[in-house]
Amino acid sequence: MTAALHPLDEATALTPIGERRALGRTNPLYRNMAGPFGGVTAAVLLRAVMDDPGRIGDPIALTVNFCAAVADGEFEVAWTETRAGKTVQHWNVELRQEGRIVTTGSVVCAVRRETWTHRPGVAPAVPPPEEVPPADTAGRLPWLERFDFRYVEGPPRFEEPAPETPRSPRSVIWLQDQPARPLDFVALAAIADAFIVRIIQVRGRPGPMGTVTLTTYFHAGQAALEEIGAAPVLGVADSKIFHDNFQDQDISLWTPDGRLLATGVQMAWFRE
Amino acid sequence: MTAALHPLDEATALTPIGERRALGRTNPLYRNMAGPFGGVTAAVLLRAVMDDPGRIGDPIALTVNFCAAVADGEFEVAWTETRAGKTVQHWNVELRQEGRIVTTGSVVCAVRRETWTHRPGVAPAVPPPEEVPPADTAGRLPWLERFDFRYVEGPPRFEEPAPETPRSPRSVIWLQDQPARPLDFVALAAIADAFIVRIIQVRGRPGPMGTVTLTTYFHAGQAALEEIGAAPVLGVADSKIFHDNFQDQDISLWTPDGRLLATGVQMAWFRE
Repeated sequence: MTAALHPLDEATALTPIGERRALGRTNPLYRNMAGPFGGVTAAVLLRAVMDDPGRIGDPIALTVNFCAAVADGEFEVAWTETRAGKTVQHWNVELRQEGRIVTTGSVVCAVRRETWTHRPGVAPAVPPPEEVPPADTAGRLPWLERFDFRYVEGPPRFEEPAPETPRSPRSVIWLQDQPARPLDFVALAAIADAFIVRIIQVRGRPGPMGTVTLTTYFHAGQAALEEIGAAPVLGVADSKIFHDNFQDQDISLWTPDGRLLATGVQMAWFRE
Repeated sequence: MTAALHPLDEATALTPIGERRALGRTNPLYRNMAGPFGGVTAAVLLRAVMDDPGRIGDPIALTVNFCAAVADGEFEVAWTETRAGKTVQHWNVELRQEGRIVTTGSVVCAVRRETWTHRPGVAPAVPPPEEVPPADTAGRLPWLERFDFRYVEGPPRFEEPAPETPRSPRSVIWLQDQPARPLDFVALAAIADAFIVRIIQVRGRPGPMGTVTLTTYFHAGQAALEEIGAAPVLGVADSKIFHDNFQDQDISLWTPDGRLLATGVQMAWFRE
């Protein structure tokens, strides 16, 4: 008897088909409006590098360019080490369907040693996750059910009419894989994109939009992630501008005891 | 008689040698500790795409991975359109020396149309640039003399001993090319990296360090940049974490009247 894979591991599974080439398949559990949730595509690109026997150290940066919608079905991932030193290693990754590039990305890995540490960034003061009720995401997009969202601030208000003045773009959320799963870099890469696109938050109405590019930086090593286990992480998302088809988003992810795990930015397109 | 090129245009000049391949050369005017100032390398990568006749629209995102130090002398730049739709276009760019990859990057361009605009991000309230004295950067690294730095907050204190407790990582600076140059995306790409690496700011002492990867998002179109002309822009830089060889940095660049031009993030390595 084998244990069932966690949906994230199922959705990011890659079958090698050659030197740094592998096949994957979109998973209906992470379906978004058009194609899969972007965070799971980001996780696939990172996983290709994480599972490479030539990788050194931990990932410190991941950039993903969503060049076109990923179609339901099979995709090919190819990755190359572009340059490596003794402690820092650079990778490019591509995802293709029908021979065409659908997603590109780059990953930076590094062997991190203990250094002077200073943490001027401070997590917001929030109630613990067990005191915050989970959002009801059932019956909406499948990917929303892959996370436990506990909104401390800035919940989506799907049921309410659009507000007359824009709402705050800021959300503060306890986030956890659902079902719970021990935290690793692949999961962090997905969670870093698990914030509802800010324009929906602000305008309170759906419309055509999608992330075009995102970058995530990792600020903790593998051992620190293992210490967290399957606990929820605290996420903060905000935006500075919505203008001429594009909006920014910046996020941060924190451990339950307030240590910074990851920061990220993205640009998302919206129609009007 | 021809007018002399601005140093930035000289340092980013590319001579075509084939289909989406060109030669460039490092310029001593932008020299940093080891190799050129990273911002000028970022500007070179963006310029390759900006000057391509197949480009559509304005750049909205630029990611640059500094894989190895750029050696003084010639380099080759090669760029490819990875995917393009009607309004969004993706590019990868590489810089090589002696046949080895030294820098990789990606650029996203987009035809931006007028949409709903909302600007929740607000520039800090500061005195105008003419009321802030320029920093004296003469006789230090050459690249520092390529900008006029007027520190509103968080000046570098090169002459002072290292502080006992870390200084704030935040700086607010009026920044301008020196000599002044009309603002364009290439100049913005360089200015987005013109903040002294935050660990120097915080610890007050030099040491081995360097930017490993950066991402810049552009929030204004070509016409908006032309309106600014050669005026200074307001830059804000901050960091959340310095830990195990790496530190983050986030920046924003604003017009003199407080409109957001660009945001950016980077990860920089430091030794100890």
